[in-house]
Amino acid sequence: MSSVKNPLILRQLFHKETSTYTYLLACGNTKEAVLIDPVLDCVERDLKLLQELGVHLVYGMNTHVHADHITGTGKLKEALPDCKSVLGSKSGARADVYVAQDENVKFGNLALECRSTPGHTNGCTTYVLHEHEMAFTGDALLIRGCGRTDFQQGSPSVLFESVHSQIFSLPKHYKLYPAHDYKGFSVTTVEEELTHNTRLTKTKEEFIKIMDNLNLPYPKRLDESLPANLMCGVTDPVPS
Amino acid sequence: MSSVKNPLILRQLFHKETSTYTYLLACGNTKEAVLIDPVLDCVERDLKLLQELGVHLVYGMNTHVHADHITGTGKLKEALPDCKSVLGSKSGARADVYVAQDENVKFGNLALECRSTPGHTNGCTTYVLHEHEMAFTGDALLIRGCGRTDFQQGSPSVLFESVHSQIFSLPKHYKLYPAHDYKGFSVTTVEEELTHNTRLTKTKEEFIKIMDNLNLPYPKRLDESLPANLMCGVTDPVPS
Repeated sequence: MSSVKNPLILRQLFHKETSTYTYLLACGNTKEAVLIDPVLDCVERDLKLLQELGVHLVYGMNTHVHADHITGTGKLKEALPDCKSVLGSKSGARADVYVAQDENVKFGNLALECRSTPGHTNGCTTYVLHEHEMAFTGDALLIRGCGRTDFQQGSPSVLFESVHSQIFSLPKHYKLYPAHDYKGFSVTTVEEELTHNTRLTKTKEEFIKIMDNLNLPYPKRLDESLPANLMCGVTDPVPS
Repeated sequence: MSSVKNPLILRQLFHKETSTYTYLLACGNTKEAVLIDPVLDCVERDLKLLQELGVHLVYGMNTHVHADHITGTGKLKEALPDCKSVLGSKSGARADVYVAQDENVKFGNLALECRSTPGHTNGCTTYVLHEHEMAFTGDALLIRGCGRTDFQQGSPSVLFESVHSQIFSLPKHYKLYPAHDYKGFSVTTVEEELTHNTRLTKTKEEFIKIMDNLNLPYPKRLDESLPANLMCGVTDPVPS
């Protein structure tokens, strides 16, 4: 294998209201692109950026069925009919392409390896871009924290196993990009989280106890987000 | 010169209330670090991150005297007495180290080249990390925009010349990191801004007209920020 990498165009995008990160990844050679976790409210921004960068969106991917914002995938597909939606095979929601453990999502000369990381939801998937030594962890792992496990098939025990077996097993220098951050952080590494994650450095028993006692409020936008996201966002047409 | 780069640790940090970006840069070999545009409200977060990453802060730098938030430099210096504050020589504010055109700020094996980019304020400085092909533009250049020019020695004519001569003259692939973004963007490139900046792709005359007709409100936090920032943040001791 050549040591010269296929060039990557990477843009981290932020939705302030829900503190959600969307990632635009494009192959620098072919200009094929994917968006990970696009937000409905930001689709116009993202479409303009795709056009300005001269890249061609092949997949609108979600790390999971979100409870806090409506996905932009359906609206992106409406604007770009070649674009396909991607979700984990255990998500229980509608998508054009379902991905399971070890499958690859290709864009140009680059590929994202899919790792099943349930525990926040059943369908949670972490996408790993080995060639550029980074992974997109959704809500499975957040910077110094993790997604909640108290609704939508959440299970602290399952999440603990997912993170340890599928994310902490990656090389220590890999960069990790989460679906959210609420304190102004944008990126971390496997090594940082192995050492400094406030929850996932604990034993499994301690972790379960922490997660079972968070007493978090009901997600503000769950009642509108969940039904829409199960259908790939509000505008996905009903299949014939 | 060797083609193997000195490794860089880079962290982009965000202050949501003022949409300000702070940048932590550290030399991966020596662990010497700088913070560009630290925010007073975020100093505890940033100190913890420095400690967790095992890096040693040598400079708290500002791209300019901010009008929208209070700098964290003074408070950082209080916590880390080895740390020195850095500002452009024409800033008119207090600092330990003043930098002028073409001077370098060294941290470990890496160095930031200082480019004077007045127009938003007189002391505005863009810091260029040539080895990693990136620059930190402060408010001189924002993604698809630029800082306002209607107070604090602002001049659209001067800003236009600064951006064209000092930033747009960098290699096209250089990444540009601004001091703020209000739409969720985090990074751009020289090429993107040369092509898609909504203001700075215009002629100088058109640019001046745009800037002179923005009719922006008075900055909310100017009256508290400016006096504090002229003194390196609220906690900088008065010299004897």
